[in-house]
Amino acid sequence: MIDFACKKFDLDEVVKCILMLSKSEFRILKFLAEHDGKFTTENLSKKLNLDKSSIQRSIKKLHEKNLVVRSQANQSVGGYLLLYRIKDKNLIKKMVTDMLGGWVETFKKKLSGW
Amino acid sequence: MIDFACKKFDLDEVVKCILMLSKSEFRILKFLAEHDGKFTTENLSKKLNLDKSSIQRSIKKLHEKNLVVRSQANQSVGGYLLLYRIKDKNLIKKMVTDMLGGWVETFKKKLSGW
Repeated sequence: MIDFACKKFDLDEVVKCILMLSKSEFRILKFLAEHDGKFTTENLSKKLNLDKSSIQRSIKKLHEKNLVVRSQANQSVGGYLLLYRIKDKNLIKKMVTDMLGGWVETFKKKLSGW
Repeated sequence: MIDFACKKFDLDEVVKCILMLSKSEFRILKFLAEHDGKFTTENLSKKLNLDKSSIQRSIKKLHEKNLVVRSQANQSVGGYLLLYRIKDKNLIKKMVTDMLGGWVETFKKKLSGW
């Protein structure tokens, strides 16, 4: 029932809120969580239909927040590509559920004061 | 942490959302939860600084939703007053925590699919 009545309490909103992510940071992280592998910002831009500058800004934030890992792939023709993957999906999921659990406990305590 | 980052997930918002209450329905219910006793719509209007028509509309809804009980107090000068109190505070709290618990389970299931 709560699923239908409380649209703003959907999975995506809660994860965004707990991890303090912008809409595009969340979209990138979700994509990386659902797709194993490493992606360039160009790949991500195409897959998510987001402009490259927005992807670059968001992936930088995700990297700063320690949610994605960057690696470098040297190209046979010279130069290199920067690749991104999600850092530790299970750890991120655990972090989210732990924080949600903590919040539920606080909620129950407050409600018992009613 | 989630308390600060996710303002929209505060106690009031969650209760409103779970019980599907409007802002003034919620304010009345919260007041009745925090103040034992019976109140007329006029009392409530003064206490909550809400106009009487809004109180009347909201208390009617709360009554329909089975969250408040109405009783009648005969007046020595003739006539009667309609009084309202919260129906069963503990049952309401239990309902809210049960629904929240169900939602958390759904949330965890969905998240594990990430």
